Parts: sequence; structure tokens; C-alpha cells
Amino acid sequence: MEPIKRVAIIGGTHGNELTGAYLIKKFEQFPALVRRSTFETITLFGNPRAFEMGRRYLDKDLNRCFLTKDLLNPTLSTYEDQRAKTIHHLLGPKGHPAVDLILDLHSTTANMGITLILSSHHPFNLQLAAYLSQLDPQIRVFSWGQSSQDSSLLRSLCEQGLAIEVGPVAQGVLHAEFFQRTEALVHQILDYLERTNQGNPPSIARNLTLYQFIGSIDYPRDEKGDIQAMIHPKLQGKDYEPLRPGDPLFLTFDNQTIAYKGELTVYPVFINEAAYYEKGIAVYLAKLQPLYI
Amino acid sequence: MEPIKRVAIIGGTHGNELTGAYLIKKFEQFPALVRRSTFETITLFGNPRAFEMGRRYLDKDLNRCFLTKDLLNPTLSTYEDQRAKTIHHLLGPKGHPAVDLILDLHSTTANMGITLILSSHHPFNLQLAAYLSQLDPQIRVFSWGQSSQDSSLLRSLCEQGLAIEVGPVAQGVLHAEFFQRTEALVHQILDYLERTNQGNPPSIARNLTLYQFIGSIDYPRDEKGDIQAMIHPKLQGKDYEPLRPGDPLFLTFDNQTIAYKGELTVYPVFINEAAYYEKGIAVYLAKLQPLYI
Repeated sequence: MEPIKRVAIIGGTHGNELTGAYLIKKFEQFPALVRRSTFETITLFGNPRAFEMGRRYLDKDLNRCFLTKDLLNPTLSTYEDQRAKTIHHLLGPKGHPAVDLILDLHSTTANMGITLILSSHHPFNLQLAAYLSQLDPQIRVFSWGQSSQDSSLLRSLCEQGLAIEVGPVAQGVLHAEFFQRTEALVHQILDYLERTNQGNPPSIARNLTLYQFIGSIDYPRDEKGDIQAMIHPKLQGKDYEPLRPGDPLFLTFDNQTIAYKGELTVYPVFINEAAYYEKGIAVYLAKLQPLYI
Repeated sequence: MEPIKRVAIIGGTHGNELTGAYLIKKFEQFPALVRRSTFETITLFGNPRAFEMGRRYLDKDLNRCFLTKDLLNPTLSTYEDQRAKTIHHLLGPKGHPAVDLILDLHSTTANMGITLILSSHHPFNLQLAAYLSQLDPQIRVFSWGQSSQDSSLLRSLCEQGLAIEVGPVAQGVLHAEFFQRTEALVHQILDYLERTNQGNPPSIARNLTLYQFIGSIDYPRDEKGDIQAMIHPKLQGKDYEPLRPGDPLFLTFDNQTIAYKGELTVYPVFINEAAYYEKGIAVYLAKLQPLYI
């Protein structure tokens, strides 16, 4: 494998996810922390204006602005469109990125603990995820699919990489324990890259279990789009636990339970994520995908 | 005591505190739920435009717009200033309000469980709080002080009343269990008023313990106002637990613990409330105040 030459660490892609935002501020103040001998590390604050305003974004979600056609569309000119083009200019272009790995630091209001979200199923990502899971078996690995080529996500700029998603953390809250755990993970990743570049990679288990995205469910809504039910109390906080056909999914405002009507047992994630109400997502569903890598 | 003739229930005073917002929507759809035979119940959605935008407020915090001098100041004209004047017109004026009781429904990102925040130490409020604490001993009662006359809070329009504060709930998240518990409390309060009006008040214990506000502490900040430390992991989530001199208070980004330097044991609340970063408040401090009522 080619050595890793440049790594980008990004936080504050969403301005009200303070874990990543303040980690980037820390790394910018103390760059020696993320410096290693065999590669260059770049840190980037994703959406500084949204951070200043305490919001996820100003005009649109920056982490949905990275489709190639949008990056190349000169008529898209909101703050986030411009910011995406700037980041694409710095780190891209897609297919031939200026960096070899992107780490994107996020938080969620869902009870997801520490989750790694792979940018693709590139063998490098799978090995890195397997290594980190081996160090901390409580870490979960989630995947949107094998490839991220056409994705609107920032991390789709580079095939190698992952997002670190920690929660539950409220928007606008800096939670010290998740800050520390995210920072520890960043150091584990940088140290792994250093060892790999030096021809001395750690031994890695060959088995990795992915939570593989299979779909999403929206809240029940009326004709105006207003939600008509809440995540059921029995599902709240149960990210990564099996959801079986017939299990409670929603509770209407007049206390009627709406059951999960799928035919298979699934594993819900991003349950009741605040930022997803407007996206029409109450919960993402995943299946277990054992891999031999 | 004079009978209660009109009660106002307000939710969505902060647009991203969804518990109260959706309870008001429910009560507006099913007004019979809050109807009782001996008094009139008004429901009011505090800040509908902030709710639509998924934010606490548009221009300024509506729940800091109710100082008499601000309500009477014609030059204050932001959306929230106008909204406060409308609400003052509907429910006020201060001193001679058109309602006898105001219930204001809130949520917090702090781990405060169910907290009643008294609008004043009016005997009616103390008795109501004692009654509700008797039904559920996990309920805590917090007070800003004996009187609310000069307060900027919405509930200062009326001496009789309280806020229901539930958490931890992330901003922008509807949490079914807190929704149900808040709704149950509203019904207990309305039923209490009904019985009291009918000359059949429930028996109430004469002892009540208040958590009485004594001050607040801001995050350590640099000259630009940027925070330099986080709520310490040992304090996070420990609302209402004693904080003793020397106990950990903050953790700096380079892992230095900052201890609580007060001279007395205090009881912190609103620890790490997302909305208070901009107000210069990391934590409120309270003392225990036993009352015989």
C-alpha cells in the first residue's frame, strides 16, 4: 500500500456539534499534538460561521453540499455552497484528492456511543476500523455502502477515511467525556498511520462486523408535514439494539403505539437525532454485516 | 383564598424546547383535556416562528423580554419584543394580570429530571409545589427568589404560577417520556385547582425544601470570550448533588482540573445547559432552603 502523506482532520462541519469544533480549535492551538513524523496533518474548521451562530448551518447543511455536480455548479452560492467549494479546492478534487485520509468529527443526540462511519469499504478503512474496534470493543462501525463516490457528504472527497460520531450529546453542548474519547481516537488513528507508514503495522483481527445501512423511517406526519407521533419510549436510546417486527416504534400524542412493520429484525441508529426531523428521518435502519477482511 | 378563574398554559416560549411546544399543540387540538368545571384554561404557543425555524429564538430570548420597562418601550421592535408585548396584552398587565396562574413548559439539556421553578413565594405556589412533590418525591423545587416583580421572565406576568423544567433533553428533540411526565403534571395541577376551587383541597405536607438560587459561574474564557474549559466530567449530569469546596468544576482543554473555590457546599443546577453558554452561565448554584408552609 502507498504510504499516507497527508491527513485532514475536520471538525465543526456542523456548527452546533461542539466536540469536533473545540477539538479543531485545540489542535490549531497545539499543532504538535497531531504532528507525526511520516505524514502531514491538516486541521480544518468546517463551518465557522454556523459555529459562531450556534447553529448546524446558516442556509443549508454543509455536509450535504459535496455532490460533484453541486461543487461544479456556479449558480449555487449560499454560504455553505461556497464553503463546500473552498473545502473541495483545499482537499479535493474527488477522485484525485490532495489528502490521503479524511477524519470528520461529529456528534449526535442519539445514544450511539462511539461510532465510526466509513467513507467507503476501501480495505484501508476496514482495517483501520477493525483495529480501533479491537482497542475498544464498545466501538461500533456503521457504513452507508461500499462506495461514497456520488455522496453529498464532505468525507466523500476521499475514499480513505471515516467520521467519528459520538453521542448522546445535545446540540450546542460540549461534553468533556466525549471530547476526551474523540481526542483519544484521533491519536490512536494517527499513531496507526505512523506505524503503518513505518512498515510496522499493528496486528489486526480479520473479523469485523458492520452495521450496514438499509433504509430509514420518517415520523408519521399530517398533510401539512407536522409530526403526529414521537419515538416510542421503549425505542428511545436503544440505538444498535435489535428492533423486531411488531416492536414499538412510535407513540402518537394520544398514546397509541405504532409498531415496526418490517419483516426482518433490524438495528436502528440515529434514533431521534435532532437534526434529522427536517430531513424526514426518525431513525436509520441497519443490518448486521459480518466481514472477513 | 380567591378562587382561580383563568389559567394560562404556555409552551414553545423557546422554539427548540419541543416538549412544551407539542403539548400546547395537543391541548389546542383537544381542548377538552385541559378544561375543568370551575375555571377557564387558555393555551398559548409562546414563540411560533422560532419553533418553525427550530431555534430558541429569532432575535432575542423571548423569556428575557418581560421587564416592565421593556414591555412599555415602543422602540423595542424585534419579533420577540413584539411577541412579548402581545403576550403581555393577552395575559397582563403585571400587577393586575388577566389570568390567575401561569404554567410555562420548558426543557433543559441539563440532567434536572422534573423541576418546578416557582414564579414567586406566594403561599399558593408553595402549597402547589408541596402537593406535587408529595405526589412524586423525585420532583425538585427551584426558586429565583421570593418575588418576581421585576423579572424579565414570561411567568413574572403573574405572581401565581410556575415553570415545569424537564431534562436532560437535547434542543430540537421530542422525548416521549418527558412529554408524558409533563402532561401528567399539568393534569395534576389542573385537578388540584379544581379541588381547591370546589373547597375540597387535598391535604398537603407542611414541609417543603426549596433549592434557592444564590449565584452562577461562567466558563473560564479568554480575552475574546472563547471558553477555555468544559464542565468537568465528574460534575456533568450531577445537577442537585452537593458541590463542595475543592470539588472538580471545569476541565481545561489541556486536561487541567479547575476546582470549585466557594467556601460553602452548594447545589448546582442547569449544569451545561446549551442555551446558557451565550449568557455567560456554566452552572447555577443553589442552597437548600427548608420551609415550613
